[in-house]
Amino acid sequence: MKLINTAMIVGLFSMQAQAADWQALPDVAPAPADNPTTAEKVELGKMLYMDPRFSSTGTVSCNSCHNVMEGGDDSRSFSMGVHGKTGGRNAPTVWNSAFHSVQFWDGRAPLLEDQAKGPVANPVEMGMRDVETAMQRVKSIPGYKAYFDRAFGPDSMNVDNAAKAVAAFERTLITPNSAYDKYVKGDKTAMNAQQIRGMNKFASSGCTSCHSGAAFNGPQMKVGDGFYAKFPTFNNAYVSKYKLADDKGREEVTGKEADRNKFRVQTLRNITDTAPYFHNGSVNDLEEAVRIMAKSQLNQDLSAKDVGDIVAFLGALTGEYPEIVMPRLPATSGSSIIAD
Amino acid sequence: MKLINTAMIVGLFSMQAQAADWQALPDVAPAPADNPTTAEKVELGKMLYMDPRFSSTGTVSCNSCHNVMEGGDDSRSFSMGVHGKTGGRNAPTVWNSAFHSVQFWDGRAPLLEDQAKGPVANPVEMGMRDVETAMQRVKSIPGYKAYFDRAFGPDSMNVDNAAKAVAAFERTLITPNSAYDKYVKGDKTAMNAQQIRGMNKFASSGCTSCHSGAAFNGPQMKVGDGFYAKFPTFNNAYVSKYKLADDKGREEVTGKEADRNKFRVQTLRNITDTAPYFHNGSVNDLEEAVRIMAKSQLNQDLSAKDVGDIVAFLGALTGEYPEIVMPRLPATSGSSIIAD
Repeated sequence: MKLINTAMIVGLFSMQAQAADWQALPDVAPAPADNPTTAEKVELGKMLYMDPRFSSTGTVSCNSCHNVMEGGDDSRSFSMGVHGKTGGRNAPTVWNSAFHSVQFWDGRAPLLEDQAKGPVANPVEMGMRDVETAMQRVKSIPGYKAYFDRAFGPDSMNVDNAAKAVAAFERTLITPNSAYDKYVKGDKTAMNAQQIRGMNKFASSGCTSCHSGAAFNGPQMKVGDGFYAKFPTFNNAYVSKYKLADDKGREEVTGKEADRNKFRVQTLRNITDTAPYFHNGSVNDLEEAVRIMAKSQLNQDLSAKDVGDIVAFLGALTGEYPEIVMPRLPATSGSSIIAD
Repeated sequence: MKLINTAMIVGLFSMQAQAADWQALPDVAPAPADNPTTAEKVELGKMLYMDPRFSSTGTVSCNSCHNVMEGGDDSRSFSMGVHGKTGGRNAPTVWNSAFHSVQFWDGRAPLLEDQAKGPVANPVEMGMRDVETAMQRVKSIPGYKAYFDRAFGPDSMNVDNAAKAVAAFERTLITPNSAYDKYVKGDKTAMNAQQIRGMNKFASSGCTSCHSGAAFNGPQMKVGDGFYAKFPTFNNAYVSKYKLADDKGREEVTGKEADRNKFRVQTLRNITDTAPYFHNGSVNDLEEAVRIMAKSQLNQDLSAKDVGDIVAFLGALTGEYPEIVMPRLPATSGSSIIAD
């Protein structure tokens, strides 16, 4: 049987002017059965997330590229890791990442627990030889033991638990109570007229074919089953201008040509705070990003008014960021563990 | 008149087994008359201090090298700035920096307000062309205006006020209530027997000749008048091993040979949390640092017991770090200001 072309599927969806199923963001993120979120794990996870000493140079923490003081990313096209090295994909926001059923742009990790281990040993990110070497550093800081004990019990200082703690912290990084959330919960004054027009245009144009659900990242899938879309689907002048088709996307993971240029559908929440845009961070303007998505995914040329309305609606998806108290990172008492 | 050799002066001081004038750390840091500390300035200053977008790459903030989640520095010998570049001196701790009468190792800035402008335009630190260019970035982020208005009044978005705000925040970064502070305030149980022995040895060895006062950084001086010491004063095997005399120190600022190898006397507060040690960060062990100081400044060989006692006493200088809520950095709404 011949594979149905993804472009055709997306095209078909876009024909249907569906009444969208508008959902508010839950107040609590789901957690896997083997890692229920506890205050003790969150406390430890926050420390590990913020601690730069588990990068080879001691300069890069999770928060360096996924800055929770900002939109959960780093304002850069490609993040900068140890020794000023840069990667090849834009850092996705950590905010609401708990609502993705797979992690990374190409969905190569099912859970936040799996994702957390990736950057540590990536030579252009945190640059450690491997996660075990990073874990040796954690173990060499005496103060961490008590936090592992409280979160996971005795003799629990290992990579899996460190990743579980980071994931537990990340599951608290959600942003409910946006203007949109209030609106769909019944407060019809929460969005202004332009935002409501944008919301309707967002649905009638077909954006909701992919960007549906509470996090605007597609239908709820089983963990590990990603909701992917081919980007770009339609060829046009934007594709070469912004090199949109140069990244093979999920094909890099599966080796299947059918997965070429496929990427996990990203959340749109807080998108006003996460420029630049797309997997290659090539577009530094939200209006341009909206025009490109309409043209490349739905083969539509939006009017300037429609673009403005949709951008106004996207602004209504910026939620309440919770207050975070800075952790106090345990000291190594009289010596440094950084030698690079 | 022949200049009196600094080594002789330090040597003479060390002969006097003075009864030290033990002082607790004040609960509030002094502020200059033209920049009284206010909650509004502290709030703005904390944001600017934490915001990496005022470095060329968007990756380096004040907090990158002076991390308030740690000992106020970065665990590195030499800090790593934009593009992985490194400087030539160890990052001094920001904690209690308000108690220094001059800033930087060589005292080239009198006030924290002056210091704050330095790293922004340093090519191996934040790498901006100049502070005005950095200020253009601040101005391009709409959300900052309201914070400047509140802190300094209308039309106040300029470099001087940005520096004043950062300095105001830094003046809140003080760590009172160490075991030592409690002890000198009358709680004789606050330090253990080893720490008390170390305290006495610290004084009788002559460490207090330089490391006196509430912050253990020398006598209180007029702002702009630094309290400097030649390091190393005595030559010995440590000097070549750790390249201690390679840095001309304050001579780089004044051009005077008499200032060769002179450095501002550093605070010893929280020193357990600020390894590695010295202006070149060459010594990664507090016991070794104590041995070196005794030998190079006081021409003494301390016994292992004395070294252990003094290190225990230095541990009693680690105070209470205040809780800091992470600031929410205003977004640029739909575009990034980072292009590097």
